[in-house]
Amino acid sequence: MYKATIVVRLKPSVLDPQGNAVKGSLHSLGFEDVEEVRIGKTMEVWLDTSDSALASERVEAMCKKLLANPVIENYEYELEEGA
Amino acid sequence: MYKATIVVRLKPSVLDPQGNAVKGSLHSLGFEDVEEVRIGKTMEVWLDTSDSALASERVEAMCKKLLANPVIENYEYELEEGA
Repeated sequence: MYKATIVVRLKPSVLDPQGNAVKGSLHSLGFEDVEEVRIGKTMEVWLDTSDSALASERVEAMCKKLLANPVIENYEYELEEGA
Repeated sequence: MYKATIVVRLKPSVLDPQGNAVKGSLHSLGFEDVEEVRIGKTMEVWLDTSDSALASERVEAMCKKLLANPVIENYEYELEEGA
């Protein structure tokens, strides 16, 4: 069993309206020292395989096909055995 | 300047319908070896302060007041200087 922790973030050049809304809310709550907020997704995927290379290949394919939109998002992941 | 990377996840006991939907989609795409998917948020917050203890205290307060729902979510964060 492998656990992949995948982080998908908007590319730095892409506007983040959700992040801007959170920044506005933080300012209203008195956190005026917040300069910028960017919001992404963390996905934990448990894979029933014992082959690390295969797990990595599968996660890469999932990110490309479903989990990230390569036009506007970057992704990175870490694999952990037996988690 | 400090950058806080905050990860907010559903507590393990809380059902994750979004994660289940993604699991279903991955199965349909041929990734049958996916056992479970859990989805959380990653937030990057840039803080205009040079005091590490203050930054940490501010981030903790933001998580409690706005960024996480302590009833159903856990949060953790890392601080990085000058990022």
